[in-house]
Amino acid sequence: MSLIVQKYGGSSVADAESIKRVAKRIVETKKAGNEVVVAVSAMGDTTDDLLDLAREVAPLPDPRELDMLLTTGERISMALLAMAIKSMGFDARSYTGSQAGMITDSRHGSARIVDVTPGRVREALDEGAVAIVAGFQGFNRDSRDITTLGRGGSDTTAVALAAALGAEVCEILTDVDGVFTADPRVVPRAHKLDRVTSEEMLELAAAGSKVLHIRAVEYARRHDVALHVRSSFNNTEGTWVVSRSENMEEPIITGVAGDLGEAKITVVGVPDVPGKAADIFTIVAKTGANIDMIVQNVSAAATGLTDISFTLPKPDAEKVLAALRVEQTEVGFASLQYDDQIGKLSVVGGGMRTSAGVSAQLFTALSEAGINIEMISTSEIRISVVTRADSLNEAMRVVHTAFGLDGEAEAVVYAGTGR
Amino acid sequence: MSLIVQKYGGSSVADAESIKRVAKRIVETKKAGNEVVVAVSAMGDTTDDLLDLAREVAPLPDPRELDMLLTTGERISMALLAMAIKSMGFDARSYTGSQAGMITDSRHGSARIVDVTPGRVREALDEGAVAIVAGFQGFNRDSRDITTLGRGGSDTTAVALAAALGAEVCEILTDVDGVFTADPRVVPRAHKLDRVTSEEMLELAAAGSKVLHIRAVEYARRHDVALHVRSSFNNTEGTWVVSRSENMEEPIITGVAGDLGEAKITVVGVPDVPGKAADIFTIVAKTGANIDMIVQNVSAAATGLTDISFTLPKPDAEKVLAALRVEQTEVGFASLQYDDQIGKLSVVGGGMRTSAGVSAQLFTALSEAGINIEMISTSEIRISVVTRADSLNEAMRVVHTAFGLDGEAEAVVYAGTGR
Repeated sequence: MSLIVQKYGGSSVADAESIKRVAKRIVETKKAGNEVVVAVSAMGDTTDDLLDLAREVAPLPDPRELDMLLTTGERISMALLAMAIKSMGFDARSYTGSQAGMITDSRHGSARIVDVTPGRVREALDEGAVAIVAGFQGFNRDSRDITTLGRGGSDTTAVALAAALGAEVCEILTDVDGVFTADPRVVPRAHKLDRVTSEEMLELAAAGSKVLHIRAVEYARRHDVALHVRSSFNNTEGTWVVSRSENMEEPIITGVAGDLGEAKITVVGVPDVPGKAADIFTIVAKTGANIDMIVQNVSAAATGLTDISFTLPKPDAEKVLAALRVEQTEVGFASLQYDDQIGKLSVVGGGMRTSAGVSAQLFTALSEAGINIEMISTSEIRISVVTRADSLNEAMRVVHTAFGLDGEAEAVVYAGTGR
Repeated sequence: MSLIVQKYGGSSVADAESIKRVAKRIVETKKAGNEVVVAVSAMGDTTDDLLDLAREVAPLPDPRELDMLLTTGERISMALLAMAIKSMGFDARSYTGSQAGMITDSRHGSARIVDVTPGRVREALDEGAVAIVAGFQGFNRDSRDITTLGRGGSDTTAVALAAALGAEVCEILTDVDGVFTADPRVVPRAHKLDRVTSEEMLELAAAGSKVLHIRAVEYARRHDVALHVRSSFNNTEGTWVVSRSENMEEPIITGVAGDLGEAKITVVGVPDVPGKAADIFTIVAKTGANIDMIVQNVSAAATGLTDISFTLPKPDAEKVLAALRVEQTEVGFASLQYDDQIGKLSVVGGGMRTSAGVSAQLFTALSEAGINIEMISTSEIRISVVTRADSLNEAMRVVHTAFGLDGEAEAVVYAGTGR
């Protein structure tokens, strides 16, 4: 008997009708002879609505209380889902993150999982029941408080359960058919991938792909959990995320990702002496901001000054600019520039490791389309470039075609956010 | 330093503005030098909305899952309330029924409290924080499941905490100024009572008064908790519910209550032989319905048949009628009559014990107003009569005046349900 863990996101359980539909899907999975565990998100926009409510009563809501508040969303959907399954004649029980043994550290709002002890879930399965677990939440033993896991939390819950229970597969049910070579709403000729390595998936997620969260992919990779991203609306095979490629030769480029969520800060006129870059990035690191790409120009010999540019998520920009301004005299730079009209395009592929010329092919394709490259950053299996934001979508289509990724037909796009 | 427990109902925390107002009230209570514990209900109609949602996914929602679902309501309001208090500069922490040590039996939907171990609440108080506790919920140790306490649950939570913590007083904050001699929306000349004995409050609650639940009053009486029912909108003294009257002479009549929630069933033509009444009420008891008043007429000598009438809550009527019909031949009665147009009027007063003529005064007042009495039932400190439903409100006003309860001015009535 296979043990399958399924994860359903907020848009899959947005209302009573959707919940009943998902319940039916779960029952079919059970009837096929599997043990079934389900991690579920809050219904629709519940989490955002609760956040809004919190900010109405307190401008800076207390983190412990915010977690207490937000976790009600998943409790509601898990209880409704269990009720729906029971009314279809199958036993089902819902469990909070705490009851399911999701043990975390104490960082409210972004807790890390430190242990998973799903004893009650295992008991439920042994008694023939489906276990529904609230995603996005855990429990801290020291403070005896509820915690939330932060972005990608429900995916992570599902993968962590799959690892702890030794599941055959962890299915991520979403409103697209799987992982595509590019966002089909931007690149109509994108096609669904049958499989992608977790290394590639990590890069695609970091580069802007929204269908799976980087954290869940990394957890799956580390614990050797097979991930299957598929549609909650139909039964077609989706995309398998595998630990390593099974092909002798990996595709050079697996996918193209675009990200409009970053901004660029340039520290202008930095004295070109040892330690200045370290000073700047120490100041930045203290703000807790996540820096992505860094570029330092060669200094002008005449002035002995150089510029350092870096990209970061737009929400982090303000605190970083503020922190740098405070230290302007100390560090000695001339000025700061802020640019929030950038787009980041990335091509990802395991085969890039052993193929020369990928960069050249990428830069040529963009140049021929008249699209200017402003920054470049690479890893073993990824190349990212920064362009103007309003060029990003066209750049993605151009590069997708240039690397032979265009499918035969236009992809079917469902209404939905791809989560 | 006094320890005060306050309870706020759903209409007091219906939205963000109300929550901030209640937070301010709690902070004022703390600033006055008290240790403060708060039991809070779900916001506005949340519980009913969640029930509706449950019935959309399952016609007969599973009891365990229903409790998991409904308890989110109080979690939401308690977390928001704690956030609001913290943003005003005072420490506050929210606790679920489980975290606050509300230990119950396993009866989902109507759990009984079996133990109260509020260790974490006491710790919070020792650290100078306000403790906010979710009303209406508890925890069963055997199944390790969340339970809900049923009707009057939040009042009961407050009283149980007050008893376990040795609080000086348990304040029930509501949208009326206290306990009135009658519902001021029906009897404009009703006035607020300064004090009422718990015995009288029990009778008033059983007789239809909605301001305090009978269960909470009984718990307070048994554990000697001082109850103070007052308005959440102002600081005036409300009504104290005391264990025994402090006056040498108790008022003969303290209050008048009306109840339109009952129906009458008459079992017609019952053979007047020993055991028939026992048979009928055994059948009724098996349905779990709560019977209120019972009247058996003297049998007609000629026929040897009699009628037995009894009243019960309207929602229970259908199952009782069904159960009796099944046994009609066995018991041997002629027919069943169902009347849902009855009203029950009760007068309550400790002084009635030592005063003659109260019944006579009551019956005379009603007769002079042309109101017919259909059934009568009494206890030591209460007399109840059944009239036509459409006569009830007038009957209450007439009786209120006849017993000298009319105040000097018309009572101020707030928009609100009196809970």
